[in-house]
Amino acid sequence: MRDLVADEAERLRFIEQKAREVSRLFGYREVITPLVEHYELLAAKVGEDNRKRMYVFDDLGGRKVALRPEFTASIARLVATKMQSFPRPLRLFSVGSLYRYDEPQFGRYREFWQANYELFGSSKPEADAEILALTDSLLEEIGLRGYYFKVGHVGILRSILSHDGIAEDQQNSIMQLLDKKQYEDVLEATKKAGSPKSSLDTLDSLFETKGNDSETVTAEIGEIVKDYPEASKAARNLSEILGLLKAGSVEANFVIEAGFARGLEYYTGMVFEIYASGMDIAVGGGGRYDKLIELFSGGQVPAVGVAPGIDRLSLALQKQESSLSTIEKVVEPENRILVVAVDGSMLGEAFKVASRLRKESIVTVELETMGRSVSKALSDADRRGITHAVIVGSREMKEKKVVLRDMSERTQETIAIEQLLAKFGKQG
Amino acid sequence: MRDLVADEAERLRFIEQKAREVSRLFGYREVITPLVEHYELLAAKVGEDNRKRMYVFDDLGGRKVALRPEFTASIARLVATKMQSFPRPLRLFSVGSLYRYDEPQFGRYREFWQANYELFGSSKPEADAEILALTDSLLEEIGLRGYYFKVGHVGILRSILSHDGIAEDQQNSIMQLLDKKQYEDVLEATKKAGSPKSSLDTLDSLFETKGNDSETVTAEIGEIVKDYPEASKAARNLSEILGLLKAGSVEANFVIEAGFARGLEYYTGMVFEIYASGMDIAVGGGGRYDKLIELFSGGQVPAVGVAPGIDRLSLALQKQESSLSTIEKVVEPENRILVVAVDGSMLGEAFKVASRLRKESIVTVELETMGRSVSKALSDADRRGITHAVIVGSREMKEKKVVLRDMSERTQETIAIEQLLAKFGKQG
Repeated sequence: MRDLVADEAERLRFIEQKAREVSRLFGYREVITPLVEHYELLAAKVGEDNRKRMYVFDDLGGRKVALRPEFTASIARLVATKMQSFPRPLRLFSVGSLYRYDEPQFGRYREFWQANYELFGSSKPEADAEILALTDSLLEEIGLRGYYFKVGHVGILRSILSHDGIAEDQQNSIMQLLDKKQYEDVLEATKKAGSPKSSLDTLDSLFETKGNDSETVTAEIGEIVKDYPEASKAARNLSEILGLLKAGSVEANFVIEAGFARGLEYYTGMVFEIYASGMDIAVGGGGRYDKLIELFSGGQVPAVGVAPGIDRLSLALQKQESSLSTIEKVVEPENRILVVAVDGSMLGEAFKVASRLRKESIVTVELETMGRSVSKALSDADRRGITHAVIVGSREMKEKKVVLRDMSERTQETIAIEQLLAKFGKQG
Repeated sequence: MRDLVADEAERLRFIEQKAREVSRLFGYREVITPLVEHYELLAAKVGEDNRKRMYVFDDLGGRKVALRPEFTASIARLVATKMQSFPRPLRLFSVGSLYRYDEPQFGRYREFWQANYELFGSSKPEADAEILALTDSLLEEIGLRGYYFKVGHVGILRSILSHDGIAEDQQNSIMQLLDKKQYEDVLEATKKAGSPKSSLDTLDSLFETKGNDSETVTAEIGEIVKDYPEASKAARNLSEILGLLKAGSVEANFVIEAGFARGLEYYTGMVFEIYASGMDIAVGGGGRYDKLIELFSGGQVPAVGVAPGIDRLSLALQKQESSLSTIEKVVEPENRILVVAVDGSMLGEAFKVASRLRKESIVTVELETMGRSVSKALSDADRRGITHAVIVGSREMKEKKVVLRDMSERTQETIAIEQLLAKFGKQG
């Protein structure tokens, strides 16, 4: 696990804050679920690979618990229990750290950060389209460049397997193979599970079908699966989702891949991942999961969601550099003032000046707390990124004045405190 | 552990965001350390009580690890290693969740949230005073009422014990008893450890010495410990810290208690806790710990810090109600718009209108995603706190207009889209 220091931490918080702003714009209410949950809950539908990578332990009460490897199981529990009576659709936002015991490698950490948006209660394509549009807004807001959405629909794939009578467990294993793009193994496993040659051919054709012209690709998919009624319905669903985004002027780049699946077992419909230029791993993903809530309650609650990866987006931004100026503007006040007392007797006055500056301005104000002389404090100030020093001496203070030194110009002037406040004030 | 839903989550995030703003005003850079750390690191100086309450487990690599029960050990590790070459003073901010296996009770949770500010490299009283002034700013910013600081100085107490040759381990146990206000047991243990009657009398007098007139109380303390040179120095240090706050016009209420100690073993000087009206537990605390960093590195690095408890502050605000209007203003946009298409063919246009509203305004915009008729969507809108509905129909859209319905007035008008954007625009 990592320490994030200064810039890294601030970039992460910048993305988190943007994610929160987007949640408000789209009407998603924030919820905070515990980091530690019952193992059974978290393990239920997370997929074999992730199950093995969970941090599992017994708490002091002897319960088998784990650190959450993703948000969705916890949110689903919440929706099925405490939030059962909330009006639908229910739009929820969460953000925080997650844990998987992976071998550390580029962009893959044992402790990682995600935002999470989920829309419960609607099975309509406009819900799927909203999740994609919201994700696009977030990526635009943080200044990510050259990104695209890879979009598929596990409903199409699962419908073909169901049509051939393949049980859900076996489907799950096949989806995991697909997630790893082991197409030969997928066909092998499907054959073993009892699918006829015609279905293997259909799957094989789907694996070849991709492109970014959504109308053409979804028409092709419809043609390939036309003998499977449920798969045809799923193909129409995908076409409607993408059609809505087009009609709604969402201008992001969507690359449709009919053979694309994701590793989590709970997906039932549209699935997607986000890729950014300069990154060969996805910076986020999501999809529809209409059967997860019923694991925790009686009723069926359709759901669709997205989890943008905050550390990965942060890495992508860092690689693209471009956006750093935007971030710096947000996280780094332009002026950074050091207030120094000429001697110990003026420390109280220095305190007061610093407090007023902080209250009436938007600058960062550091007080000299090392007991150094003015000249030593000033010679250190450059190293600390200080833009202005305010020197508090008794002679000036008698006239309610201080000395203001511009650290880059290396000039200084005696200035009334009121003038100082006006110079750096919120209006200034 | 708890779920925080909607208002609770938003109140917590509001305090977290204010804490971050204050960190920027005072020049504290944010760092993010892992939630899981080596057990040995976290257990080193956390105090016996907290040690027993840690969530400890073996990770998949067989290392003994734990969930952090506080930030300071992790931050100290960071300062002693990766940040060793950063210029001093080093001001660091962190915020997040911490874990202690307590019996759940009012304001005490197994998963709890803290902000954390630490100033490294200065042993001067102005550093202690800055930490207290910063805490005061935060409490003022979030709108907490009727709070006060309880302030003590473990340096005074430890100096007396050291003077009598009592070893640090024994001192730690005595400090833990003091933290629990078991004064009789403290005197018993001190006697057993070999202190003469004169020291017991001195301690007893200190336990009685408290008040909110800092000059008087610190003068009294000075008088009581005048035969102990190190304790006298510590008493002067406390007096200087409080004097600076007064000179600096920090107007918070400080209650000085000479017999006040905190449970964490690493404190060496000034210690404090924050109490708010309506809460009988501290909402935060901090102090000076000059010997913690040397546990991790060679050099001595003096340090002072504070950890405001975010859930406890949130509880206090909730109890005081007063501030809720402030919070709501921050977290809850005034207008909440529902965009409804009159039928499926207008969904794409509805999408576009919703996107433009979000881009050019500060309102929350929900799109109808349940496929309900306009009348059903509207009758549900009240329950959802919707203030305005925008109805997108083909006839109006031909003229680039929509129907805007005021949900509380129950009136509606046909309005040009540009006019709609102007009405809810960022300037509006």
